[in-house]
Amino acid sequence: MIGRLNHIAIAVPDLAAAAARYREGLGAQVGQEQVLAEHGVRVIFIDTGNTKIELLQALDGNSPIAAFMARNPGGGMHHICFEVADLAAAIKRLTAEGARVLGDGNPKIGAHGRPVVFVHPKDFDGTLIELEEV
Amino acid sequence: MIGRLNHIAIAVPDLAAAAARYREGLGAQVGQEQVLAEHGVRVIFIDTGNTKIELLQALDGNSPIAAFMARNPGGGMHHICFEVADLAAAIKRLTAEGARVLGDGNPKIGAHGRPVVFVHPKDFDGTLIELEEV
Repeated sequence: MIGRLNHIAIAVPDLAAAAARYREGLGAQVGQEQVLAEHGVRVIFIDTGNTKIELLQALDGNSPIAAFMARNPGGGMHHICFEVADLAAAIKRLTAEGARVLGDGNPKIGAHGRPVVFVHPKDFDGTLIELEEV
Repeated sequence: MIGRLNHIAIAVPDLAAAAARYREGLGAQVGQEQVLAEHGVRVIFIDTGNTKIELLQALDGNSPIAAFMARNPGGGMHHICFEVADLAAAIKRLTAEGARVLGDGNPKIGAHGRPVVFVHPKDFDGTLIELEEV
């Protein structure tokens, strides 16, 4: 069912500093900053050729990642995103297996303009999983 | 400098149960368990087509991931691994930028039989980064 790993998201306290570390220290292909006001974050994507790293910084204390940053002030790996062809079928299969979809259980439009859901990290070994319909 | 994201490693308390969740709940391509005694872990790889998820379970309390599991008993994202063509050059560049390579600073032979180093997570926003020479 799941397809490619679309990205791994890393929440950071200072987006410009994090991007500079990846660019200067690792020679990574670092993109331009984008502000996603409706998602409460600013983001920079790093293209690794086969997938992407999404660096995230909270816009303010109401950001969806604000609680994570309060627990991890230095930053940390926040979620991984897999591509799926049929999100409704994926939700049906996951919930039949006992996993919980966050929120009201229905897809929302994600940061890339496509339908997404997040699965409860307690149902996947402490890993927050995003599924994006492509 | 860095190339492909080779894998993301997720440490779990029960490898068979974690593998079953990915196989049944997400329909993932889950491989066979391998015991890497010299690395203190048993592992199962999940092939996502473009990269891999490496599920890790500590063999015992002396495992390199034992301290992580003590802090995160339910499991969690442990590290990400990038491929590099020249590990010596990568170490030189990273240390010139102020990042710290763990251990004695020299490559070790990693779980895939290739030279690897790990970079201090405090120098990359709480993310433990492995570099593997390919």
